Amino acid sequence: MKPIRVVQWGFGAMGSGMVKLMLEKEGIEVVGVIEKRPEVVGKDVGEALNLGKKLGIQVYSNPEEILQKDKVDVCLHAIHSFTKHVFDSLKLILERGINVVTIAEEMACPQAQEPELAAKLDEIAKANGVTILGTGVNPGFVLDQLVINLSGACLNVKRIEASRINDLSPFGKTVMETQGVGTTPEQFAAGLKDGSIVGHIGFPESIRMISDAIGLGVDKIEETREPIISNTERETPVVKVKPGMVAGCRHIGIGYANGVEVIKLIHPQQIHPEVENVDTGDYINIEGDPDIHMSIKPEIPGGKGTMAAAVNMIPIVLKAAPGLKRMSDLPIPACLMGKTAYERGF
Amino acid sequence: MKPIRVVQWGFGAMGSGMVKLMLEKEGIEVVGVIEKRPEVVGKDVGEALNLGKKLGIQVYSNPEEILQKDKVDVCLHAIHSFTKHVFDSLKLILERGINVVTIAEEMACPQAQEPELAAKLDEIAKANGVTILGTGVNPGFVLDQLVINLSGACLNVKRIEASRINDLSPFGKTVMETQGVGTTPEQFAAGLKDGSIVGHIGFPESIRMISDAIGLGVDKIEETREPIISNTERETPVVKVKPGMVAGCRHIGIGYANGVEVIKLIHPQQIHPEVENVDTGDYINIEGDPDIHMSIKPEIPGGKGTMAAAVNMIPIVLKAAPGLKRMSDLPIPACLMGKTAYERGF
Repeated sequence: MKPIRVVQWGFGAMGSGMVKLMLEKEGIEVVGVIEKRPEVVGKDVGEALNLGKKLGIQVYSNPEEILQKDKVDVCLHAIHSFTKHVFDSLKLILERGINVVTIAEEMACPQAQEPELAAKLDEIAKANGVTILGTGVNPGFVLDQLVINLSGACLNVKRIEASRINDLSPFGKTVMETQGVGTTPEQFAAGLKDGSIVGHIGFPESIRMISDAIGLGVDKIEETREPIISNTERETPVVKVKPGMVAGCRHIGIGYANGVEVIKLIHPQQIHPEVENVDTGDYINIEGDPDIHMSIKPEIPGGKGTMAAAVNMIPIVLKAAPGLKRMSDLPIPACLMGKTAYERGF
Repeated sequence: MKPIRVVQWGFGAMGSGMVKLMLEKEGIEVVGVIEKRPEVVGKDVGEALNLGKKLGIQVYSNPEEILQKDKVDVCLHAIHSFTKHVFDSLKLILERGINVVTIAEEMACPQAQEPELAAKLDEIAKANGVTILGTGVNPGFVLDQLVINLSGACLNVKRIEASRINDLSPFGKTVMETQGVGTTPEQFAAGLKDGSIVGHIGFPESIRMISDAIGLGVDKIEETREPIISNTERETPVVKVKPGMVAGCRHIGIGYANGVEVIKLIHPQQIHPEVENVDTGDYINIEGDPDIHMSIKPEIPGGKGTMAAAVNMIPIVLKAAPGLKRMSDLPIPACLMGKTAYERGF
């Protein structure tokens, strides 16, 4: 049996975590890494990851050096969140006859906000006989794929409400800034206006994926972002929040069908939710016949969940029919243990 | 768009429920029912279901009368639990070039206990260009497909423990007898010995499906069945349990890999668990990185869950590659609302 040959494009926190994960997986062979940062370009991946040994795997700055159809089966892609920013890189990979798994959030369902680019990617993938999938913990798993899967046990579905309540404390400065942590309410309002505070990326994608799969007929999506004002002092290594300041962003996405709310997704992200007795967790409530009330406590961790979802989908994407796919189109992921990387994909 | 033409084989509690469900679904057309019971043979399905109107759909006693490739796309099959008892009927359907969704419990993963029959069904399905799937709420969903799906968010998995705690109170006499409800502990022991008390059907199937999908290497499966002795008086319309008598069967299935327990599935089934403060629910605990602790409260109801899983998989099975499939091999189910029966399946 031949291992699946994977190139990692993007070697930040997610990319390097995925490389480490793949190095442990039987049936997956990392054949190269693509990254622009000069401090790693040209290095051996073992050195770049401080593993204390060379692995014989190089970090390339030029994607075309390593992305060759006869040497690479799948490219794992982790460089940006937005479809329009990653389109050119995805096109390049597909045109070289290589399958793609990307964690760009909007690519979990690019039909939602970039239907033209989605159609182009589908066309390019089919023309080159390869598959492209966007995934990650959210969008891609908790607030969409898992919702859809659970609905499979329902005779009918009227409305869905799901929430993901997590703890931002482990994250770095960029996340704190894009979520508005540590701002005053006035700064938060200004940040929303000028686009520097964005909250979660992925609600239109999750709502569209659910609506398409279950047939809920969503024709309008609205999002609201509110500051989570802290009543207590909260602190992380990168940010300090005093009472009255913003501890995070309560972001809500709502899907309407003919004016009726049919999908509501809630994602309050803050530092140290426990100090105000907020339990973290993933919650899915399906109103239908039967009702289904699911909870995962604590929530599936974002970083690990995203790395796992992406790597675990590799064999499935490799064997899937050509084209642009969503998690709702493909067999369920499974943790790749033992020799399953060779076997899964069907 | 043409609707999917379905024949229902088996018109008991499950079969008639599935027919009623399919009658509500856009994109699915029930074209016939197969059933031996003389009181319904030859009748119109609308009459047989007491709908107060004729539907122009007949109940046939002879399967060959209605199972014709050019008239039927999928046969939904609900007549028995064991692969060896349903093999001939499944073979007949497949050889007529018709896809199958069956709720026979062992067919959720016939590789577990009937590998030769499973291989034959796979061969026959492929030779006739059609697909066959076994599904249901359990096996087929809660204690296997959902476990596998959740593991998709894990970097690695060491051990899985999952339980389904349900209430048997709504069920009829046959279920009470096969679960030993209302027996004395001595009668329960004797019933286990002579095979009249069986507990849950599906543990080897669920364990094998999980192990194969995640690669846990299970090489031995053990099952234990213990009486749930009641401390209180419990009663349903069909059975009465006094303190000291048996209120249900605590059935456990364990999968070992090289002598180590890697999968433990627990299914205590009893009447009125609430009188002794037992909360019903479905619980999945994955020990790995990360750990995942999921609960669904109350549990997904068995009858509705099984009908839903089977009907919701119809379009996916219709479009899947030929052969014998398991839920772990196919795209996730989704509740078929709107026009999705036409669209799903990919």
